Amino acid sequence: MIAAMTPEPRSGHARVADTLAKLAEVEADTWVATASTDGVQHLVPLSYAWDGRSVILAAPASSVTVRNVRASSRARIGIGPTRDVVLADVEVDRIVDAADAPADLAERYAVQSGWDPRREPEPYVYVLLRLRRVQAWREANELEGKLIMRDGAWLY
Amino acid sequence: MIAAMTPEPRSGHARVADTLAKLAEVEADTWVATASTDGVQHLVPLSYAWDGRSVILAAPASSVTVRNVRASSRARIGIGPTRDVVLADVEVDRIVDAADAPADLAERYAVQSGWDPRREPEPYVYVLLRLRRVQAWREANELEGKLIMRDGAWLY
Repeated sequence: MIAAMTPEPRSGHARVADTLAKLAEVEADTWVATASTDGVQHLVPLSYAWDGRSVILAAPASSVTVRNVRASSRARIGIGPTRDVVLADVEVDRIVDAADAPADLAERYAVQSGWDPRREPEPYVYVLLRLRRVQAWREANELEGKLIMRDGAWLY
Repeated sequence: MIAAMTPEPRSGHARVADTLAKLAEVEADTWVATASTDGVQHLVPLSYAWDGRSVILAAPASSVTVRNVRASSRARIGIGPTRDVVLADVEVDRIVDAADAPADLAERYAVQSGWDPRREPEPYVYVLLRLRRVQAWREANELEGKLIMRDGAWLY
């Protein structure tokens, strides 16, 4: 009876469509994992936006996450819940001071995330992250076929 | 009107109680961030159990997460959703082959997580993680007072 309650695994095309819908979701957060050059992991939930090419985060310029991505140019992000996961290895495209950000970038972030870091008292930066490798799965029966992007290209 | 919809911030005692309830939740997952010694971050969602002292994970012996925690003896875990967060810096207490695990450990994990890694075809290990530093918050109005454990001791 348990097996009957788990839906059939989604196709690759369905997983890409569902992933794009998650990336476009309003007022959503992603778990952002980074590491220092000497191997200390960091993890925080951050609000995000999506411009069709990059995931856009905003974080204090002095935060551990920003320090780590400046040094490593990479991160791994997880969008949940944990039984409807999108997990992406990402590369830093650009890091932009919020105070000097192009209006279209700042407006896009504010509209999708529901929050405008330009109004915070401390200096923020936008971090634009390019997707390189993406996995998407719900339950154990979707572990096969979970890879949906490789080397920056959707596989479906 | 938005402000009126956000509940009052919880007390420290309430945050500890809610955190213990999350740790005891059945069939729940946590986001597990680790790093390699050369600074490559990793992130995966894993089922967990809680014995009142350590968070217990199970993962393939050959997985990146297990390789990283064997080398670094630490991790950072996030239990969601992202607007009801428990974020913990943890230290490895023990790593135990599932095949040789004490029955009470294996049973505890199977009962709480709803899954028994001893039945998997590949070798698994249990990773017991001691909480060292814990933060808990829901919305922005709970960022103040988010620290609820320091140096392994609950502050409330």
